[in-house]
Amino acid sequence: MAENSDDQAGGAAVSGARWTQEPAGLLRVEEGFRLDAVDTRATPGYAGDKKTAGHDLASCGRELGDLQERLYAAHHEADSGPSVLLVLQAMDTAGKGGIIRHVVGAVDPQGIELAAFKAPTEEELAHDFLWRVRRQVPGPGMIGVFDRSHYEDVLIGKVRELADAEEIEQRYQAINDFEAELAEAGVRMVKVMLHISPDEQRDRLLKRLDRPDKHWKYNPGDVDERRLWPDYMAAYQAVFDRTSTDAAPWFVVPADRKWYSRLAVQRLLQTALEVIDPQWPAADFDVEVEKQRLLAT
Amino acid sequence: MAENSDDQAGGAAVSGARWTQEPAGLLRVEEGFRLDAVDTRATPGYAGDKKTAGHDLASCGRELGDLQERLYAAHHEADSGPSVLLVLQAMDTAGKGGIIRHVVGAVDPQGIELAAFKAPTEEELAHDFLWRVRRQVPGPGMIGVFDRSHYEDVLIGKVRELADAEEIEQRYQAINDFEAELAEAGVRMVKVMLHISPDEQRDRLLKRLDRPDKHWKYNPGDVDERRLWPDYMAAYQAVFDRTSTDAAPWFVVPADRKWYSRLAVQRLLQTALEVIDPQWPAADFDVEVEKQRLLAT
Repeated sequence: MAENSDDQAGGAAVSGARWTQEPAGLLRVEEGFRLDAVDTRATPGYAGDKKTAGHDLASCGRELGDLQERLYAAHHEADSGPSVLLVLQAMDTAGKGGIIRHVVGAVDPQGIELAAFKAPTEEELAHDFLWRVRRQVPGPGMIGVFDRSHYEDVLIGKVRELADAEEIEQRYQAINDFEAELAEAGVRMVKVMLHISPDEQRDRLLKRLDRPDKHWKYNPGDVDERRLWPDYMAAYQAVFDRTSTDAAPWFVVPADRKWYSRLAVQRLLQTALEVIDPQWPAADFDVEVEKQRLLAT
Repeated sequence: MAENSDDQAGGAAVSGARWTQEPAGLLRVEEGFRLDAVDTRATPGYAGDKKTAGHDLASCGRELGDLQERLYAAHHEADSGPSVLLVLQAMDTAGKGGIIRHVVGAVDPQGIELAAFKAPTEEELAHDFLWRVRRQVPGPGMIGVFDRSHYEDVLIGKVRELADAEEIEQRYQAINDFEAELAEAGVRMVKVMLHISPDEQRDRLLKRLDRPDKHWKYNPGDVDERRLWPDYMAAYQAVFDRTSTDAAPWFVVPADRKWYSRLAVQRLLQTALEVIDPQWPAADFDVEVEKQRLLAT
């Protein structure tokens, strides 16, 4: 790619953008990870700035689109096969919607399965907490996106004491078992927490209040949740301690700068697809015979 | 919009692109419509060419995205309310996929409900032909897209005699009743047939055969369907004669030039949204009170 030739002169350069190190390595939750040590304004691994980010998002979006099309072509009609599942968790205003619009939205909608998990319905509450999630696992060849997820059941579920402590404990294990089962079935999970500071959230909520065309995104309940910030951070820390596994690792993406978090999530998706390395399927027909049949019509 | 100021000098100009007349009027199937009189290479109503089309698709995509966001904001959490349903029907290679990727793909995926109807499963065959379609009707505030639809049951269903003539007859009426019910519930339907010539299809199929990265899109069965072209055109004519209603009109979009068909379908969607005219919802909270609550945290 011509536009990256300058980066590629540097030894550690990564194709596709101004990445000097892979977010998949830098942002991954490893043993001993401390959420409170993360700088939410940082832009780890990216050598560009806000100005270059728009360009890189577009050019990497084309690369991601190409990989997605290969994944779809190779696997979408099979009974089993690889898929990708992006799980998005975050405090309000952290930018889940922007990721879906600008990162996910840049690839062919025919290859995307998007699921938004809101407060559970009565029917959903009548089942195990993973029931509604299992129904939305992406099929072979697809990229699934969870806007919130089963992690709500150990985040708001814990903070608001919607379940007792013993039940919460059991859920971590149930999640790990579930995700190990998904990984075994070929689902490559990319679990992302978009991490903003409380100050950044206040600024973003104030902006929503200032703009009548953003009022619909504002919910007075957001302020109530905001008051529980330390409790939520503790619940996230417990999630990372208990559920960041080799089969399904967590990535904490600094998100005070939207341009960075979008680029980073895009890159994480691209890495997941590159590991799958989908190839155009070979023709299951004789190309020359088909040409003759076609020309005879 | 600055880029259209030249067009707007002309009296009949339409905002948003180089449209001199609305596709919603020009392409609509009215009494006496003859499919065989349509020029598949024509570009009715559009004063630009292939070069301007890319620019117009992008700028009108932003307008469409704005309207979609208003629709979503105003209605998506309500129990009832307006939605848009784009129904796409076409012979193979006519460009349904490109419409989904380049027109639908330009708006926020969170506001889109995409449903692809393939050959019915056993479960689907055990029900009335509209059963699987009813389950995919877009909810309030959403734009639904049907990649094929219940019309397959009177197209391939008729051509391949998958149902007897009497049953096909009954289906036209069932479809009209169903669509009148949808319209009553606020679903604004935009039923589109992308219309290509048999020569154009042959060229496109040959191109797929020439490119290994397109082989996966080629199906030898496409040639068998192609041999039945006149039968399909007769079945489409019958569909137009029987099911183009005020509640749910058909539009036949010349599609030999992909750049035209994409612009035209985009414009049809935009017109549907403009008729709904969604407005940003008013705040259901006191903005000043919320600012104070927020600043106190």
